Amino acid sequence: MIPRYSRPDMVAIWSPETKFRIWFEIEAHACDAMADLGVIPRENAEAVWKAKDVEFDVARIDEIEAVTKHDVIAFLTHLAEHVGSDEARFVHQGMTSSDVLDTCFNVQLVRASDILIEDMKALLAALKRRALEHKDTVRVGRSHGIHAEPTTMGLTFARFYAEMDRNLARLKTAREEIATGAISGAVGTFANIDPRVEEHVCEKLGLQPEPISTQVIPRDRHAAFFATLGVIASSIENVAIEIRHMQRTEVLEGAEFFSMGQKGSSAMPHKKNPVLTENLTGLARMVRSAVVPAMENVALWHERDISHSSVERMIGPDATITLDFALARLAGVVDKMLIFPDNMLDNMNKFPGLVMSQRVLLALTQAGVSREDAYAMVQRNALKVWEERTDFKEELLADEEVVAALGKDGIEEKFDLGYHTKHVDTIFARVFKD
Amino acid sequence: MIPRYSRPDMVAIWSPETKFRIWFEIEAHACDAMADLGVIPRENAEAVWKAKDVEFDVARIDEIEAVTKHDVIAFLTHLAEHVGSDEARFVHQGMTSSDVLDTCFNVQLVRASDILIEDMKALLAALKRRALEHKDTVRVGRSHGIHAEPTTMGLTFARFYAEMDRNLARLKTAREEIATGAISGAVGTFANIDPRVEEHVCEKLGLQPEPISTQVIPRDRHAAFFATLGVIASSIENVAIEIRHMQRTEVLEGAEFFSMGQKGSSAMPHKKNPVLTENLTGLARMVRSAVVPAMENVALWHERDISHSSVERMIGPDATITLDFALARLAGVVDKMLIFPDNMLDNMNKFPGLVMSQRVLLALTQAGVSREDAYAMVQRNALKVWEERTDFKEELLADEEVVAALGKDGIEEKFDLGYHTKHVDTIFARVFKD
Amino acid sequence: MIPRYSRPDMVAIWSPETKFRIWFEIEAHACDAMADLGVIPRENAEAVWKAKDVEFDVARIDEIEAVTKHDVIAFLTHLAEHVGSDEARFVHQGMTSSDVLDTCFNVQLVRASDILIEDMKALLAALKRRALEHKDTVRVGRSHGIHAEPTTMGLTFARFYAEMDRNLARLKTAREEIATGAISGAVGTFANIDPRVEEHVCEKLGLQPEPISTQVIPRDRHAAFFATLGVIASSIENVAIEIRHMQRTEVLEGAEFFSMGQKGSSAMPHKKNPVLTENLTGLARMVRSAVVPAMENVALWHERDISHSSVERMIGPDATITLDFALARLAGVVDKMLIFPDNMLDNMNKFPGLVMSQRVLLALTQAGVSREDAYAMVQRNALKVWEERTDFKEELLADEEVVAALGKDGIEEKFDLGYHTKHVDTIFARVFKD
Amino acid sequence: MIPRYSRPDMVAIWSPETKFRIWFEIEAHACDAMADLGVIPRENAEAVWKAKDVEFDVARIDEIEAVTKHDVIAFLTHLAEHVGSDEARFVHQGMTSSDVLDTCFNVQLVRASDILIEDMKALLAALKRRALEHKDTVRVGRSHGIHAEPTTMGLTFARFYAEMDRNLARLKTAREEIATGAISGAVGTFANIDPRVEEHVCEKLGLQPEPISTQVIPRDRHAAFFATLGVIASSIENVAIEIRHMQRTEVLEGAEFFSMGQKGSSAMPHKKNPVLTENLTGLARMVRSAVVPAMENVALWHERDISHSSVERMIGPDATITLDFALARLAGVVDKMLIFPDNMLDNMNKFPGLVMSQRVLLALTQAGVSREDAYAMVQRNALKVWEERTDFKEELLADEEVVAALGKDGIEEKFDLGYHTKHVDTIFARVFKD
Repeated sequence: MIPRYSRPDMVAIWSPETKFRIWFEIEAHACDAMADLGVIPRENAEAVWKAKDVEFDVARIDEIEAVTKHDVIAFLTHLAEHVGSDEARFVHQGMTSSDVLDTCFNVQLVRASDILIEDMKALLAALKRRALEHKDTVRVGRSHGIHAEPTTMGLTFARFYAEMDRNLARLKTAREEIATGAISGAVGTFANIDPRVEEHVCEKLGLQPEPISTQVIPRDRHAAFFATLGVIASSIENVAIEIRHMQRTEVLEGAEFFSMGQKGSSAMPHKKNPVLTENLTGLARMVRSAVVPAMENVALWHERDISHSSVERMIGPDATITLDFALARLAGVVDKMLIFPDNMLDNMNKFPGLVMSQRVLLALTQAGVSREDAYAMVQRNALKVWEERTDFKEELLADEEVVAALGKDGIEEKFDLGYHTKHVDTIFARVFKD
Repeated sequence: MIPRYSRPDMVAIWSPETKFRIWFEIEAHACDAMADLGVIPRENAEAVWKAKDVEFDVARIDEIEAVTKHDVIAFLTHLAEHVGSDEARFVHQGMTSSDVLDTCFNVQLVRASDILIEDMKALLAALKRRALEHKDTVRVGRSHGIHAEPTTMGLTFARFYAEMDRNLARLKTAREEIATGAISGAVGTFANIDPRVEEHVCEKLGLQPEPISTQVIPRDRHAAFFATLGVIASSIENVAIEIRHMQRTEVLEGAEFFSMGQKGSSAMPHKKNPVLTENLTGLARMVRSAVVPAMENVALWHERDISHSSVERMIGPDATITLDFALARLAGVVDKMLIFPDNMLDNMNKFPGLVMSQRVLLALTQAGVSREDAYAMVQRNALKVWEERTDFKEELLADEEVVAALGKDGIEEKFDLGYHTKHVDTIFARVFKD
Repeated sequence: MIPRYSRPDMVAIWSPETKFRIWFEIEAHACDAMADLGVIPRENAEAVWKAKDVEFDVARIDEIEAVTKHDVIAFLTHLAEHVGSDEARFVHQGMTSSDVLDTCFNVQLVRASDILIEDMKALLAALKRRALEHKDTVRVGRSHGIHAEPTTMGLTFARFYAEMDRNLARLKTAREEIATGAISGAVGTFANIDPRVEEHVCEKLGLQPEPISTQVIPRDRHAAFFATLGVIASSIENVAIEIRHMQRTEVLEGAEFFSMGQKGSSAMPHKKNPVLTENLTGLARMVRSAVVPAMENVALWHERDISHSSVERMIGPDATITLDFALARLAGVVDKMLIFPDNMLDNMNKFPGLVMSQRVLLALTQAGVSREDAYAMVQRNALKVWEERTDFKEELLADEEVVAALGKDGIEEKFDLGYHTKHVDTIFARVFKD
Repeated sequence: MIPRYSRPDMVAIWSPETKFRIWFEIEAHACDAMADLGVIPRENAEAVWKAKDVEFDVARIDEIEAVTKHDVIAFLTHLAEHVGSDEARFVHQGMTSSDVLDTCFNVQLVRASDILIEDMKALLAALKRRALEHKDTVRVGRSHGIHAEPTTMGLTFARFYAEMDRNLARLKTAREEIATGAISGAVGTFANIDPRVEEHVCEKLGLQPEPISTQVIPRDRHAAFFATLGVIASSIENVAIEIRHMQRTEVLEGAEFFSMGQKGSSAMPHKKNPVLTENLTGLARMVRSAVVPAMENVALWHERDISHSSVERMIGPDATITLDFALARLAGVVDKMLIFPDNMLDNMNKFPGLVMSQRVLLALTQAGVSREDAYAMVQRNALKVWEERTDFKEELLADEEVVAALGKDGIEEKFDLGYHTKHVDTIFARVFKD
């Protein structure tokens, strides 16, 4: 995590303050449940809540940890300083550190997911708005970077919408998968703690009890979670690459927002760089880089080894903070990006009318011309356009054989853009269901 | 894909014969739909089905492709040789090669998923059977490879069951995500083909129409699919590592199956190697290696570039064939693996009774001994066991302070294994719901 | 490995025939060394060479392996069928299977490296030839896909040359690193075999003895090897992306070769797709996908576990065959690619003269104009060009303040392309040292 | 980067203070060279050095960047505040931001390499010391986690030494590869700056001029650099896994250092966890995770896109800081780790004498017993040991057939450990050449 690519709400989830707050809640709820079960005295459970509004002193906890070499013990010691060490003596009873750490980590991932879900909704809203705005803005579709047939800018936004909507569904699934907690003791047998404590704590924290844990929550959940972030990041890259292509000097069908009037970068609009989407391309690589370590974390030894911990201390904050930043940045880019419809038409007509050559070829064969002859007829006219930049339609209208086959009106008709956009509404109806 | 790590049913999905068969079905169903819409003559659509039972001649198609340099055209040419070139002249009308290629690829992935789902069910059955069989087989739970507290072998199998059950749910989601088809033309606008053709073909092939495609089906679907395979592979590694640990000479709590009577490797049972699970560890790495390329495939240029194609020609077969093989191998290993309960007890008692030291510590503090004193009392007795391999319980019974705090019966009680297994049924009820 | 992306010489390295041939040589040379040491009778060592010209029967060996479940034993059994089972009885004495397998694998990697080195030399030759050819072919340099300042096509080729030349050096290092053999027995102690046998075998096979092995050769060597292939693949992607960009319809500064006269794809030159370089982009992803598994292979348990084996059975052939194919394909693309110098000039002048705006800005400040004023002077003229596509130089010549600052000649001079190419020779001299 | 896994010297390399200091040096040396060439006045070049001992004010630069949105301009503005804005007016003339950024980044990587090289030397020293210390400490070698033949602990340390020594060589190569600088202007043509400026700056900073750059230094260099860090990390994992295995409760042949007398974790030595090496296992995953993004960074668009920048802002510090910490931690672990030779012998004799069964088998066949008979003879005795834990040698001595074949002395001799350690000196001589 570096400040440049971070937003405060997500960063806050990963702060020591937040972590200790969650630890406190886990311990306090656990005490309540133990009191309910008659395992510890009610007054001790209630006493813990004295720390409810305390801002835990991170420096003090670090100080204790420097001595105890154990973060959870350091926290508990500090908690006792607030609650009273006698009152606090049943806190954490029968629990293992991982009960606190793992449940907390999942709470953090759930909260991170909630922010990411909101990010995605904002991105979806921007994509939808731009899709509707440019539903009929014609541009050339390209395969292999080569002009193919006309499409519309709205379809481009709509397909990104559909892709991100799938990602939203994936993210919700990932959130659900990670929303578990475990208070099951040193090897997951509940030997020293009743399973009902786990149930109570999870309920209070909005989690499901992990059906079976060891000392830790199984890491396939986390692997699936980070893999989902990796897929989302790849989709961000997908949108970013499209915009970067659009902003190329030679293409210039769109651009990251800049204001003509404003000083600075806009002074030379021909030098306006798509730095935000280039940046997003790089950030996508970074989010994706969390996937393999998260998968390597699954195969822990027996009831746990702690190799996953250092990985998660890094990828937990890094991947979520970076993705949050990237999603918000992308939403902003999409929301405000400049679209240049005139350039779209200019580009489509770089070789005037040639983009319709496939359709003419099809029409000729449908009119009964053999495939070979049709090919030759298209080719001889296309080559003139390619070499001399004449107009394809004019060439065809001047070609007697073509006219004989299709008629003048028939030729004209092949250059009707409406042919290509006639199903846009159908597609929009599929994508934007509500 | 290499034969050594392949099973025939999955291999068959990726054969040229299967591919051409699927291509045929796509084209034939598309003709039907076009005939229904009055776009092409009914008799031409019907004529295509003459090839229904044809075994397409792969060598012949390759021969044509060597000339045309285009696989779909080669296939269509060969199809016309069966159907009659006049009758076949409307086949593929208005379609683009990717309509066929992408829809076919997804059909193959769906079929591959169906095999993988069956594989997982077989694995789950084996895990469940072994879990029930060893529900009460006590072994020591380990964190960091170090003895912690008792657990049971059944819990080990049960947690692998729960993990694989989650993977099954993930796989079903992945299958559903990949079960789409697209017949939408060169840039996805349906300019030259009616969307109802897509609907018909998809229905016939068990797919959903892709709501919005370009020339290709969006690759976030495939990224999510291969990421799911990567998570499953990581779980396979998780089980494999457990078994490899169990089979270590020093641990020997379990082993891949071998028969004592049989000649060969069993001649020297102390030399029986866990080669199957080691192999699974390696195969897991390979399945996982498909994840990053699949994610890098998402960001195609504009309406498509063909960079994804070579990747998918490799990871499509490789990842599914390898995972199929690995799941089947693992199911076999689990089903037949040897469990050595006596060794489990021997290991647990390597330092006799020491595994109960945490519980004794807890009991002492619960009995009112200060944490510091309790620690010292446990430590002085534990050290004797560590250094002289005496029995921890005996040491405690001989320690007046401990006896004063816990009583002789209290001490005895702390060594009751039932304390640790009392919630096994609760956990099993959570895991095995039906 | 799939035939479509394979070349025969590299494939042959990985055939069973080649593998058995290498195994034979290892065993035969080992026998010679043991005879030299007096450990086995000379006549038995000599007898082994009876199989020198034998084509080993792969089917027969597979048949034996189906029974013995051990590939090396199967081979030795078959070898005895040729040599005579009595004569062959000392073959493999004191050796362990990995002595043969690992040494053979490294021989294969060395041979693969030799092919790759030749591939790279061919690619370098093509890059150099094209660099010299287009040393002075001016095109616009682009940062962020946006026009920056003029450069030459020759510099583009030259930088790819320099990059591939570094890769060649890396590959040679990787080859050297992997060129080791080990004949050190079950745990690498030479308990049952003299180290001089290892020395002799390695010398005969062009390898260095592994200074210290366990049952296996340490896998950091292989990790470094495959990492090097991954870097080379990334450089291939780098060149491929440049060419794909050049061939975009809007850019069209270059293209993969096609002949205007030829039928087929050239019929519509505007539809000629950069499929070879797109394919290379995908192949680069696949070569790179071998890197992580190779690194995961390093941490084997104790003196070896066999998890690396399945990985290497796949990535050994796959990564080298794919990279060989990719390098050869790229060399062909570079060698024959079409360069369109006129389009380069057209593109550079898309906004006529604007590419010189930075230089004019610099000149103004050097002429004593304040940075702020200089900016404003450039901006007001640049905006006209941007909006109305007038000529930047003409605008400047008509701007009194600019003329006052720079003089008419001074303005003219700023548009001299020679200013930008004056150091091309210096750079070429750095890159092409011989 | 997180403080928990960081060391101050490496962190300092990546501080803004260090970065600005390096930027200053680049700019100041560039001014000197320009003055030498007569391009700018000498006094302006000299004036820059007024800031030689200035601690740049990071907060102030950030403040300016918040306005200018450009880090290099912000720095130059701040520099002018120290130097005088008139005196500073030639600073950065003809240069592009990347000239500063990329050259600085490589300086940082070179300095990071220097620390890492020292780390590795310390690790090598520890490994060598422990190797010599335990050259003759016999333990059982294991393949597949299964006892194979005797080896020594010294050989284990020696092979890690050899592996890390190779890594040191790789790191030195990587350092050399990354030790380049570029001051070549907007597209690398030196249009606005003389190549001799680059040469001078590089010489002063201990770099080589990049033979050909674009706006940036080519990223294959960085890919190779981070790949090297990934290989080193994988070797760290290799050592870590060995130690974790040694410390398993059942194995207990070694342990991360703890002092028996000391309170805390040592209270219960049977609970001492290998948390440092588990941590190293996780850190290895993280260093490795930088490799793929670094490779994805190679294929930049044309003369540069900025997608690599965000990646490098993260992996630059993260990978070097984490690796530095990991190497230092590992050196400490190796230096102080506890070795338990008695346990090594106990383990080797878990099935008393069975570890020699292979050697007995070999001896029997060498004595003329048929392979089949030899197998049976070993098997019947081995099974007794396996099942009843009797002593293998005693069983053999009581087996008339075996005695007939080998003689009593012959049997005794097979159990001589010296047989297995006789070449240890040879291997040590190969590994420790100086």
